[in-house]
Amino acid sequence: MRIPIDHYSVIPIYRQIEIFFRKAIQSGTLLPDMRLPASRKLAEDLGISRITIENAYAELKADGLITSRVGSGTYVLPLCPLSSLEIKNSRVTWPLWQQDLVIGKEIIAGKVLSKRQKISQHLISFAAGSGDPCLFPVEDFRRTIQSVIRRDGITAFEYGEPSGFTRLRVSIVRVLASQGLQTQPENILITSGSQQALALVSQLLLKPGDVILVESPTYARALDLFRTLDLKIVGIPLDHHGIQVEKLEELLQQLHPKLIYTIPNFQNPTGVSMNSWRRRRLIALVDRYNVPILEDDFVGDLRYEGRAQPSLKALDPGGRVIYTSTFSKMLLPGLRIGFVVAEGPVYQELVRRKHTYDLASSNLIQRVLESYLTIGRYQTHLRYSCRIYRRRRDTMLKAIKLHLPADISVTPPRGGFFIWLCLPENISAKNLLPLASEEGVIFAPGNSFFPNGSGGDNYLRLNFAANPPEEIEEGVKRLGKVIKRLRQYQ
Amino acid sequence: MRIPIDHYSVIPIYRQIEIFFRKAIQSGTLLPDMRLPASRKLAEDLGISRITIENAYAELKADGLITSRVGSGTYVLPLCPLSSLEIKNSRVTWPLWQQDLVIGKEIIAGKVLSKRQKISQHLISFAAGSGDPCLFPVEDFRRTIQSVIRRDGITAFEYGEPSGFTRLRVSIVRVLASQGLQTQPENILITSGSQQALALVSQLLLKPGDVILVESPTYARALDLFRTLDLKIVGIPLDHHGIQVEKLEELLQQLHPKLIYTIPNFQNPTGVSMNSWRRRRLIALVDRYNVPILEDDFVGDLRYEGRAQPSLKALDPGGRVIYTSTFSKMLLPGLRIGFVVAEGPVYQELVRRKHTYDLASSNLIQRVLESYLTIGRYQTHLRYSCRIYRRRRDTMLKAIKLHLPADISVTPPRGGFFIWLCLPENISAKNLLPLASEEGVIFAPGNSFFPNGSGGDNYLRLNFAANPPEEIEEGVKRLGKVIKRLRQYQ
Repeated sequence: MRIPIDHYSVIPIYRQIEIFFRKAIQSGTLLPDMRLPASRKLAEDLGISRITIENAYAELKADGLITSRVGSGTYVLPLCPLSSLEIKNSRVTWPLWQQDLVIGKEIIAGKVLSKRQKISQHLISFAAGSGDPCLFPVEDFRRTIQSVIRRDGITAFEYGEPSGFTRLRVSIVRVLASQGLQTQPENILITSGSQQALALVSQLLLKPGDVILVESPTYARALDLFRTLDLKIVGIPLDHHGIQVEKLEELLQQLHPKLIYTIPNFQNPTGVSMNSWRRRRLIALVDRYNVPILEDDFVGDLRYEGRAQPSLKALDPGGRVIYTSTFSKMLLPGLRIGFVVAEGPVYQELVRRKHTYDLASSNLIQRVLESYLTIGRYQTHLRYSCRIYRRRRDTMLKAIKLHLPADISVTPPRGGFFIWLCLPENISAKNLLPLASEEGVIFAPGNSFFPNGSGGDNYLRLNFAANPPEEIEEGVKRLGKVIKRLRQYQ
Repeated sequence: MRIPIDHYSVIPIYRQIEIFFRKAIQSGTLLPDMRLPASRKLAEDLGISRITIENAYAELKADGLITSRVGSGTYVLPLCPLSSLEIKNSRVTWPLWQQDLVIGKEIIAGKVLSKRQKISQHLISFAAGSGDPCLFPVEDFRRTIQSVIRRDGITAFEYGEPSGFTRLRVSIVRVLASQGLQTQPENILITSGSQQALALVSQLLLKPGDVILVESPTYARALDLFRTLDLKIVGIPLDHHGIQVEKLEELLQQLHPKLIYTIPNFQNPTGVSMNSWRRRRLIALVDRYNVPILEDDFVGDLRYEGRAQPSLKALDPGGRVIYTSTFSKMLLPGLRIGFVVAEGPVYQELVRRKHTYDLASSNLIQRVLESYLTIGRYQTHLRYSCRIYRRRRDTMLKAIKLHLPADISVTPPRGGFFIWLCLPENISAKNLLPLASEEGVIFAPGNSFFPNGSGGDNYLRLNFAANPPEEIEEGVKRLGKVIKRLRQYQ
């Protein structure tokens, strides 16, 4: 009997033999009452020990697939009903419950994220969602990981507290205080990135069909989440000063939304910030209409000019605003450490829910972050990053003025990572992208940032932070070429 | 004017001053039209520079809280409507939407997890959910983290792929193959622990009110999750050979469950394993009734005797079983790396959903795990752990025979971490726990493992793996004392 044996496989040989027979029996190649080779003979044939064969047979016997008849040999037993199904269907059909799954939209994120890997000398990407990895303090972190493991040993690898490493929460309180936001460790919950914070809050406060108000456009991964949860997403238009709060009251009266999701500082994708009057007005409105705010402050720190606005949370009289931020953008995306600031009953509910979702965020990484996060080092890194990124923003703005058509409008951002470009009316960002890609430059097309997935076709988002100045210059030049070419043919 | 300044605080002084005035204005201590001190005078009073005061005032002006009148001075401005609310309510009342939150049950987990910290010389805990941290290969991991960061640099800290680090998925394929489960990297999704896998699958396939069938008793954190999701939890009784599959068909016909959650190997909390016949019967039944199985194999590797049963996944003709496991129990809980094995449309839906929940699990830790996880090292660690834990199991069984009353029954587990104790009818595990705690020993009382939270009051779960033999001996002795004492008074 010819049985393929791989002597170099990690799979033990007795297992390979067992699997071979198992498959043969289940597929009907070996039928009930057929006699299997005697172990001694098979061992000879295959050039392996008899014990190995007998181990394989023992497993099959234990599973009721074969049986030994004394003095007679080893025989295949009849299978239970399922196997007749297997014999009938030589190809697998997915069970009905799988076929019924509503297939969700393809996520763009995978493509955007993997673009980093495709970056060669030829492709310049303005599509990334983060800053420049080269600024990441990798060496610092490596050393810090070392010292934390030496210091804490096993404890660093245990589950840790559900609301997060206490000392890290204390450090975060200090960081927030230096930004004018007063809070306490007991109101901070560590999450696996701010994406998890968005997921926790949405799932706690809303059910399928509930209305959520978002900026239009807004963070694409948040839209993905809200769609996955079957929420009714309603967009509020933005202008240079952020969300158009004047249009908000009517929506609150008509739609009774269960949550308002806002990115008040250096918004993704537009780069605009909510002005002071609107922040206060928003707080007053949600108070009157009893609607919670989810404030996403993912790059509030990265300010290049102007004054820091108080966060909505700093204006919160108590319990109206759930604030989230992350260390993914300022430091390292791979850390997956974010946090929520909240007071009132909602805080404990978030802790509880987070616990049921993944028990706790990485204790080791939380400890490393706490160790790293002395205000001095964080502030130093912040100032350094701001300096670099401000220069890059200026480089890109200059390049845009130089290389792109004059009727392309741009709102210079005062912080963050993104420049939001408005193309002339007859140019579609979606159509532009493949052409740009061939020319060696990519960006994030505008429609993925809009609630309906459309209505943003004239826009594109450029990340000025992730590339050095020469690449920015060159990338915008390429973009200009493609736009010019596209216009000639229209 | 007396303003408290802390010169040693991490909060910049101009901020401290700004915050002081901001609070005073918002609380009504400073009323509209009151005149603020001239910056030069205030600077003199506080012994700081005038520029500092002016920076503070500039921030308040930018926020519309104060204004300068030329030649006159700086005055407090009236606040927007909300502040009158603040002035009225000297204590914060939570907004209505917070008051309406259904307050979930207190999680026991927090208490169980934190018991590790309370372990002193006097308290012996049999309540833990994992193995002995002392067995964790901390040094190995520390060195591996080093070499991975040196090898991969920045890339180790980037987001990574949504379905998980490819090479880790390949390693997992090999590990599973050596256990008789054939799969491919394209069918593996890395999750943030197997708890996240449970959360993803439940939320994808069920909505509030849907029926989920579970073993009764079963893993307490899974019950927490199902309750949080408002599922209707129906328990199927267990016996020494696992879930009573004979009782299953009727439940499937009557209740139309949307998912069956099972732990076929060394179940938590009972330690029993599903026998071979029942595994096949279960597969045949779910096929006929079109119900998915979620198989949780968290300690299938930790086998001390008997033969390995094929996992349900290994018996799955295709797409009927979603399999999950974790490295938390075998290696280190703090890693938060688990995985799902699934085929068919459900796989992509799980990847998509996981992405919206937290983008990706820690890229760094995945890479470290992959580097560590050469089959040789994993198998070595596995054999070592099995040897230690088997001895501890035997120590506990012996101690139970010696120190506990004869009418206490125990089913010796053939693997895993737990011994499930059945107390005599008139003894409640919940009542026993505080008494045992005073005596210096704790355990996990049975009722948290039952779907209704009750009906398990006669049972308790003992973790034999987490303590060295002397502690086991001593702990069981203390438990025996307390039980004896409790009986005397009844």
